[in-house]
Amino acid sequence: MTITGIIAEYNPFHRGHAYHLSRAREITGADFVIVAMSGNYVQRGVPAMFDKYTRAEAALRGGADLVLELPLCAACGSAEYFSDGAVDLFMQTGIVTDLCFGSECGDLEPLAEAAALLADEPEEYRSLLRQHLRTGISFPLARATSLQEALPSVSSDMLSSPNNLLGIEYLKALKRRKSSIRPHTIAREGGGYHELTMEKGYYASAGAIRRELIHSKGTFTEMIQAQLPSPGIYHSYEGKTPLTEDAFSLLLLQRLRSIQGTSLNSFFDVPEELSNRIWNRLDEFTSFSDFAELLKSRNLTRTAVNRALLHILLDIRQYRRADHLRVLGLQKEAKVLLNLLSTHGRLPLLTGLSGSGLPEHTFYPDRLYESVRSLVHGIPYQNEHRRKMLIV
Amino acid sequence: MTITGIIAEYNPFHRGHAYHLSRAREITGADFVIVAMSGNYVQRGVPAMFDKYTRAEAALRGGADLVLELPLCAACGSAEYFSDGAVDLFMQTGIVTDLCFGSECGDLEPLAEAAALLADEPEEYRSLLRQHLRTGISFPLARATSLQEALPSVSSDMLSSPNNLLGIEYLKALKRRKSSIRPHTIAREGGGYHELTMEKGYYASAGAIRRELIHSKGTFTEMIQAQLPSPGIYHSYEGKTPLTEDAFSLLLLQRLRSIQGTSLNSFFDVPEELSNRIWNRLDEFTSFSDFAELLKSRNLTRTAVNRALLHILLDIRQYRRADHLRVLGLQKEAKVLLNLLSTHGRLPLLTGLSGSGLPEHTFYPDRLYESVRSLVHGIPYQNEHRRKMLIV
Repeated sequence: MTITGIIAEYNPFHRGHAYHLSRAREITGADFVIVAMSGNYVQRGVPAMFDKYTRAEAALRGGADLVLELPLCAACGSAEYFSDGAVDLFMQTGIVTDLCFGSECGDLEPLAEAAALLADEPEEYRSLLRQHLRTGISFPLARATSLQEALPSVSSDMLSSPNNLLGIEYLKALKRRKSSIRPHTIAREGGGYHELTMEKGYYASAGAIRRELIHSKGTFTEMIQAQLPSPGIYHSYEGKTPLTEDAFSLLLLQRLRSIQGTSLNSFFDVPEELSNRIWNRLDEFTSFSDFAELLKSRNLTRTAVNRALLHILLDIRQYRRADHLRVLGLQKEAKVLLNLLSTHGRLPLLTGLSGSGLPEHTFYPDRLYESVRSLVHGIPYQNEHRRKMLIV
Repeated sequence: MTITGIIAEYNPFHRGHAYHLSRAREITGADFVIVAMSGNYVQRGVPAMFDKYTRAEAALRGGADLVLELPLCAACGSAEYFSDGAVDLFMQTGIVTDLCFGSECGDLEPLAEAAALLADEPEEYRSLLRQHLRTGISFPLARATSLQEALPSVSSDMLSSPNNLLGIEYLKALKRRKSSIRPHTIAREGGGYHELTMEKGYYASAGAIRRELIHSKGTFTEMIQAQLPSPGIYHSYEGKTPLTEDAFSLLLLQRLRSIQGTSLNSFFDVPEELSNRIWNRLDEFTSFSDFAELLKSRNLTRTAVNRALLHILLDIRQYRRADHLRVLGLQKEAKVLLNLLSTHGRLPLLTGLSGSGLPEHTFYPDRLYESVRSLVHGIPYQNEHRRKMLIV
């Protein structure tokens, strides 16, 4: 049996995602497609625009058979942690045989070459890296330059495209974990990750759609609807302000004030340099996004700052891999996957949290998200404990 | 030397307050007038509309010689705790000789009679109280009824006016503490506490002014300016949204969610009945004020609910009297009061917090207030640690 894994955020789910799902099924000959999807917080270090149940539902209506939740540390970690956590999750399922990811290049060979080099870090590469770091350039740039020098066959374009880089991280994680999961890649169609334009008949990026949604205050304009696999998917969210990090501004400020003066070393992935800058500039805090913009530097991207602030807000102290398989939703026709997961899975299978025995602090991030969501949208609070997986 | 104490909130300071200050000075022949004023939270169980420094400044410009901060537990406690905390603070100064409060009746005699009865609680009164409570009426109503039956000379009108009732509590506290401070009362002019109308040439209540300010979104309209002792007093606050409890909604919800399921018994003045109702109805939370409205009952006024929610939000676990004398501000000409307070005061005198050695959690309520204020007004955060008393 072929069970293909896809790693995604679907923030929000769009036509390009539906295309990727159907192509992945096709090229791997999959019996089932399982998606490992970020929960309520995403890799840019911000809350997801729509909550995880809404996004899981869209994924199921858009072609996925089952949606697993990525563990929080992976979902809002850097590319390396994101990939490690996602690959680990698929390995723990015991049933995923193939992994299919989108990339700008659409060609596995050069990505695998780069991944092999990064997984092993031979002395030749490490020496190049040291040399470049000594010149004072940032780590990502030094790494890209060293990689390219060590692998002349790989184009520099390839190493600067975000989905290629993420693909390399997936391949590296598979290789390091000696996983038997077979990788595949599909060329992304349409707008690149950083392109924010939206034209009809063109695959826009999730970033472009998010920008439009913020602009339209949550109204699914004709232009946005044209990017959805089926226009009905988000109807119930029509007109609700999409959540952004700035709905969490007061909570973040209060959190920072309450731990002010302590070292931020104990939080996951908060560099010392950033810790100092946070305390020095705290009185200039006006919002989550403005503060992140204020804190970013040559060495630290806005995304890295966002992630650090999110780790502090959510009290994430260390990287943890999954300790359970959390099913957010499932296609009716794919119920057999639950049996397979409970038989072959190497972690407890959870289809809801009631009676899960998970410690209380596990729910803190979701409680925070739901508190904000219920107040911003003026809708009833949904208790995570009582949520069950969706069946579509 | 005569030093007269006045207990106040000044939320905001208005013409009636200036009149009271000058009359108090006159009738007591005071050399100095010291005000004990609520800090950033007030007796209705909500944040003050303007922060304590702004209100202290107005009081000093309006005729006070020195402003002391009421301890938090008193400032946002019920009338009995409010009075006990304020009277205690004046006793601890070692220099306050007289206390002057406003009342609807303007006559000390009947108030003192009622206070004597409540301070001693003779069996006759207690038996009446028991009888009335057995009929199922609320405690405040049973108390007023029993008082009136025990003191036929006192009119029922008198016992239903809020400032008379507060005055009785002051007198009761003085009596119970066997204080040598001499009480005086001045008849309030103009709008009663519960009257919300505002007419030119008439003394409006602080409640009426607050309502107008919320309506005008912080603009000091001509009608509001007519109620200020001098129009310039609040100019720097012009156009800034007055703070209400709803700016704290998300923080309260997050606080409740984070302690959900635990008993609220450990918080100060949170009745068991309310504790249960909070957990039963938490999913209906839409804002601080709506939630308080939802929770109020025949036995529990909206104000009592507000106070309980505030105690939970600010982590107030038990009633505490003052453990220091905190000077918020001072008239230049009254500097001698600082010497007197440091010589005769029975508690450490603080004119700022830097180096005060006060434990960290002491600052939590002010930090919360300032965080909200800086975000709502888009103005820089003012660090309580670095604030010094105002000299006007």
